[in-house]
Amino acid sequence: MAKPKFRELRRSYGFDEVAIVPGNITVNPDQTNIELKIEGFTFTIPVLASAMDGVTDVRTAITLSKLGGLGVIHLEGVQTRYDNPDDVLAEIARAPASEITPLLQKVYSAPIKENLIGERIQAIKKAGAVCAASVTPANTKRFAPLTAEAGADILVVASTVTTARHTSKSYEGLIFPKLRKLVSMPIIVGNCVSYSSCLELMQTGISAVLVGVGPGAACTTRQVLGVGVPQITATMDCAMARDDYFRESGRYVPIITDGGFRNGGDICKAVAAGADGVMLGSVLAQAKEAPGLGYHWGMANPHPALPRGTRIKVGTTGTIEQILFGPASVTDGSQNLVGALRTALGICGACDIAEMHKAEMVIAPAITTEGKFWQMAQGRP
Amino acid sequence: MAKPKFRELRRSYGFDEVAIVPGNITVNPDQTNIELKIEGFTFTIPVLASAMDGVTDVRTAITLSKLGGLGVIHLEGVQTRYDNPDDVLAEIARAPASEITPLLQKVYSAPIKENLIGERIQAIKKAGAVCAASVTPANTKRFAPLTAEAGADILVVASTVTTARHTSKSYEGLIFPKLRKLVSMPIIVGNCVSYSSCLELMQTGISAVLVGVGPGAACTTRQVLGVGVPQITATMDCAMARDDYFRESGRYVPIITDGGFRNGGDICKAVAAGADGVMLGSVLAQAKEAPGLGYHWGMANPHPALPRGTRIKVGTTGTIEQILFGPASVTDGSQNLVGALRTALGICGACDIAEMHKAEMVIAPAITTEGKFWQMAQGRP
Amino acid sequence: MAKPKFRELRRSYGFDEVAIVPGNITVNPDQTNIELKIEGFTFTIPVLASAMDGVTDVRTAITLSKLGGLGVIHLEGVQTRYDNPDDVLAEIARAPASEITPLLQKVYSAPIKENLIGERIQAIKKAGAVCAASVTPANTKRFAPLTAEAGADILVVASTVTTARHTSKSYEGLIFPKLRKLVSMPIIVGNCVSYSSCLELMQTGISAVLVGVGPGAACTTRQVLGVGVPQITATMDCAMARDDYFRESGRYVPIITDGGFRNGGDICKAVAAGADGVMLGSVLAQAKEAPGLGYHWGMANPHPALPRGTRIKVGTTGTIEQILFGPASVTDGSQNLVGALRTALGICGACDIAEMHKAEMVIAPAITTEGKFWQMAQGRP
Amino acid sequence: MAKPKFRELRRSYGFDEVAIVPGNITVNPDQTNIELKIEGFTFTIPVLASAMDGVTDVRTAITLSKLGGLGVIHLEGVQTRYDNPDDVLAEIARAPASEITPLLQKVYSAPIKENLIGERIQAIKKAGAVCAASVTPANTKRFAPLTAEAGADILVVASTVTTARHTSKSYEGLIFPKLRKLVSMPIIVGNCVSYSSCLELMQTGISAVLVGVGPGAACTTRQVLGVGVPQITATMDCAMARDDYFRESGRYVPIITDGGFRNGGDICKAVAAGADGVMLGSVLAQAKEAPGLGYHWGMANPHPALPRGTRIKVGTTGTIEQILFGPASVTDGSQNLVGALRTALGICGACDIAEMHKAEMVIAPAITTEGKFWQMAQGRP
Repeated sequence: MAKPKFRELRRSYGFDEVAIVPGNITVNPDQTNIELKIEGFTFTIPVLASAMDGVTDVRTAITLSKLGGLGVIHLEGVQTRYDNPDDVLAEIARAPASEITPLLQKVYSAPIKENLIGERIQAIKKAGAVCAASVTPANTKRFAPLTAEAGADILVVASTVTTARHTSKSYEGLIFPKLRKLVSMPIIVGNCVSYSSCLELMQTGISAVLVGVGPGAACTTRQVLGVGVPQITATMDCAMARDDYFRESGRYVPIITDGGFRNGGDICKAVAAGADGVMLGSVLAQAKEAPGLGYHWGMANPHPALPRGTRIKVGTTGTIEQILFGPASVTDGSQNLVGALRTALGICGACDIAEMHKAEMVIAPAITTEGKFWQMAQGRP
Repeated sequence: MAKPKFRELRRSYGFDEVAIVPGNITVNPDQTNIELKIEGFTFTIPVLASAMDGVTDVRTAITLSKLGGLGVIHLEGVQTRYDNPDDVLAEIARAPASEITPLLQKVYSAPIKENLIGERIQAIKKAGAVCAASVTPANTKRFAPLTAEAGADILVVASTVTTARHTSKSYEGLIFPKLRKLVSMPIIVGNCVSYSSCLELMQTGISAVLVGVGPGAACTTRQVLGVGVPQITATMDCAMARDDYFRESGRYVPIITDGGFRNGGDICKAVAAGADGVMLGSVLAQAKEAPGLGYHWGMANPHPALPRGTRIKVGTTGTIEQILFGPASVTDGSQNLVGALRTALGICGACDIAEMHKAEMVIAPAITTEGKFWQMAQGRP
Repeated sequence: MAKPKFRELRRSYGFDEVAIVPGNITVNPDQTNIELKIEGFTFTIPVLASAMDGVTDVRTAITLSKLGGLGVIHLEGVQTRYDNPDDVLAEIARAPASEITPLLQKVYSAPIKENLIGERIQAIKKAGAVCAASVTPANTKRFAPLTAEAGADILVVASTVTTARHTSKSYEGLIFPKLRKLVSMPIIVGNCVSYSSCLELMQTGISAVLVGVGPGAACTTRQVLGVGVPQITATMDCAMARDDYFRESGRYVPIITDGGFRNGGDICKAVAAGADGVMLGSVLAQAKEAPGLGYHWGMANPHPALPRGTRIKVGTTGTIEQILFGPASVTDGSQNLVGALRTALGICGACDIAEMHKAEMVIAPAITTEGKFWQMAQGRP
Repeated sequence: MAKPKFRELRRSYGFDEVAIVPGNITVNPDQTNIELKIEGFTFTIPVLASAMDGVTDVRTAITLSKLGGLGVIHLEGVQTRYDNPDDVLAEIARAPASEITPLLQKVYSAPIKENLIGERIQAIKKAGAVCAASVTPANTKRFAPLTAEAGADILVVASTVTTARHTSKSYEGLIFPKLRKLVSMPIIVGNCVSYSSCLELMQTGISAVLVGVGPGAACTTRQVLGVGVPQITATMDCAMARDDYFRESGRYVPIITDGGFRNGGDICKAVAAGADGVMLGSVLAQAKEAPGLGYHWGMANPHPALPRGTRIKVGTTGTIEQILFGPASVTDGSQNLVGALRTALGICGACDIAEMHKAEMVIAPAITTEGKFWQMAQGRP
């Protein structure tokens, strides 16, 4: 019997498994440029806040925009289901762990009020902030026009996995080229994780892509469905799609790595892997201004029949400004994320994000030296 | 001295080490077909319940069949050794951990009563359910005719490792082609884990193969004997044997991955690896109807001299229907397993199980992000 | 600057990282032959007891021999330093953990009494047992003649690392071909872990080789010196040296994997990797007859300046006979080791140890399924 | 669509992931030569003490020098900011964990007193010791002349990452060839981790290179910035740069692996990987004479806006002499480091450090056997 050629699987990597190699030249961090451009818009810092109810509401979207980033408000969450979402958010924060899944299932079964879509968008715009609003593919045809009408600047169409092609008997799939004609604003689409699905999305003409399936701290997609690709590999593959598409079309479609970040190191690694921007959930849920009141939970996931999220206690550590710009009062990398990114660029000799994409990385399991030393030390007088 | 060519070992993978990559097209989960066919029988869901005493008895076999799956009753367990097995099951559930191995050794040393074989099978058949009954290879010649006579639909011949060829001085090995002639029903044989042993079994004419040695939660075969192959590799290798055998013979012999499942994600991965069906132990032992009363233990393993099983407390979480079809009240993937499988097919753009076999997988260690985040958060106010 | 060709390291494997693949044919375990031959001696089971004071004394050496194996008594431990070693062993067992290293340093600084060498050997011989006695290379010239004179059957010359060549100004290195002429009995030498050092040792004419540096439960060589090769790789490499030497010389020199075993699975894996026999420390220190009274510690390692051992509590689980032949009352693989080995041979279709050397193995990290399941279950009612 | 060629990352290794393979010949440890030469200076042991405030002050620098090694005093730490640094060190040791980062930020914001630079250097010189003093690149032009003037023997220029080229608008980068002309003493520069950056540094004419970014027990650079390469790979790559540079120029520039060491095994592995010397932090912070009083913290890292260090309790275990030369009273490898290094050389048949560079290493995850055995044993009577 001839030896069969066994099926082989490719190895993928997450944040904990890689490290960035310093460059041969160093640059003063103050001289680095970390801008993110999405069609007409330029953000001075490449940071988006997740379209999750514990992270982004009207207030935090305004704050983020003033600090140079972008908050994305979810149009199918508590902000548009409740006139007074703060009461609901407080209820979620107060609920004991054992009751949280049924509570979230109940909270998210309330109907979306179309008038609130306009109100939330206008509140953000009135403050002079850039407004990005998020809808799911299934509801895009219904909500996108309302979003445009209310004056939103950027439309985000996102679900766990969104592809350029969808097969369904019950409704016609969302056709992105049609959507581009329907609304005139930039469209960010997600999420995807593979080279080919990212390339196909870019070819539909959309403005930016969200990268990430299953990595988030509040997401249990990998346990429930077995689906997901670790963020470093997902980012590297989608960055290659972006570069190939740019060579082919002349159009540069930025990719935004979305989910799984815990500290500045993770952000630096995503950028070294090829990300043009990052979308933060748990990390910003720790902000004093965060609507989650120290808690964070999966947004698309209070599914009535197959819930895939979980509520985690993230605590409250500092203001959004302190988390992004410091000064840090902790040394675990969860504060001064922008300073960390600039410092990493400097260490790698990168003047901007495009140069940082060329930084070398190695596979290097998360350091445990410190923990071990402690253990060793504890057994002693 | 010339450099020697060192012996090299192949890497194998288990559920925790892989993840499924979403496809380039998505399909509405409601439109997916997840049927499993075993010779004349078609099951609307590809789920078998293990031939283990904590999982399958007459009642759960009936329930499983009505829900579209198949429960396999073990003909050498408490169901055929005791007129009133429920008393024994309660005793096992009540026993303290320190006394469980001797108790199981005692319980399983009681003789098998041949009349009970017929009674159990007829009870299942009387309820209109499909009846599958399991025997070990050593007892097959003795019990298979009784099984056929009592009206069972499918015969399962299984032990830790079963091969097409067996060498023994004390008894003539089981010859599967002969067995096929002896009983006219479909025969499922297991367990095996390698390409060549699976191929040889298929070549004997049997109807389906159980794949898995050593992975189960209640199994300690790998510690005791060092033998076993992780389920993803075992499934991929046996799926290749099935496909090669189909090309060679034109006969499609389904493979059923048996053991080690903890959640929907594991099931989805097994199918992506090539499984036509899955056999669940611990997961179904958690059912309210489960005979194990919240406990689960190795079946073939209360060996009088070399026990290789262990009793684990799995708890009770919901009805069989809820575990299989939801709605899920937990987010860890242990409920609505069928919904999870359909959703994963949809995300991979697969209309049926055969298409899901082509889904891409990557090697991706189990996510620990959440755990780490918690740890990080706990050190804070 | 041209890309440098980086130094690459070879991956090595330990017991926890591999698993044995079942064969295409199965054999009745009762029909397997697991003999080990060392020159003129044939042992019905391939099990040696370590030359460690917590494992082998006169009584256990006799018991082991009667059961078909071989106990190796250390001639430089408490047995030859104290007329009444049992008192010293009891003192070691009673000492609190914080005082154990200085106590061992003191205990092992007492002088060796040459008369006790003869006494211990004769006590073993008088009982009709095969007697193997162990010395370190530095003391071999002094003690080997005494050992021969007292009637020992097999001489073991072992230290952490022993090579065919040694450079020293202070004393002439041990020359094995000379030693073979000096004493007429078989000589087992160790320890080594690499192909080339094993081959060189075999070429000196010695009778068997001990394989293993740094793996033992009571050994901290890898922490202290950074030196050591995991046992599966060490065994595979030395087995290749044995096979090459056999082809070259026609002389078959068995290799005995020494150290790191915790259960039957480890023993089966060592044999599948190429071992002709195994030398057990911690596992036999758990015997009711063990001189260590439930404790085990490194033998060569109470070094006055650089101690590399540690005392571990192994507990007491059963008699030597029960540990080797069962029946097992536990399911963790620590009892009925011989039964486990025969069963594994049967599952792999191997009639004897030589055939088991051809069993396929895969790289497969230790299973953690059970642990995880428990964790999962604990969060539930 | 053609299959894209995915970006691939190279695997890197740390101390815990490798092990040294014994040689085919052994050497008496007493005959090994472990000298380290840095331009005119010869050190009988290849050990440097880190330029960290918990490790090196005037007293420990003197002790180290007398024992044959080299302590490096940091000229930008508490020793030059405070007339009476011992008070400040005691305050750091007393501070509760929750207040340590702000305290360190405050302590290190006090100005450096130039007169103390001279005083500290002269105190070391007056005792007859070799004096090495460390500055950061940004302050080198200002402090280097003072250092030379005060009579220091060796200048160390070090920061997290130092390269031969630096881009900044605010100040002219440090030009090493110019610095060599400015001060006549040997210059050690660091830190770097890659082949090319190490080679470029050597080509500037400096005397030795410090290797290591992010490995230290008191360093959180990898979490905060994602930057760092594990020490074995960093050492192997820089050793290759050293060897290539030696072939190219005829000048041998030693490399000193700096950071992450916990025991003798780590030191032996660094040397086997190619290190000419090692720089120890945490391990020497455990000395009775250590200024840190049982604590250790990152030196360059009390950054006012982005702190990357942490204070860890290392405890106090023995004198510097005992840690370096034994006798060891513990068996975890943290004492008698020099004895361990000589023993490892002996086991590998290496007469000196250059020969030890040729020792074979294998990839071998840290042993956990002992831990597992304990766990196993605990569940028993």
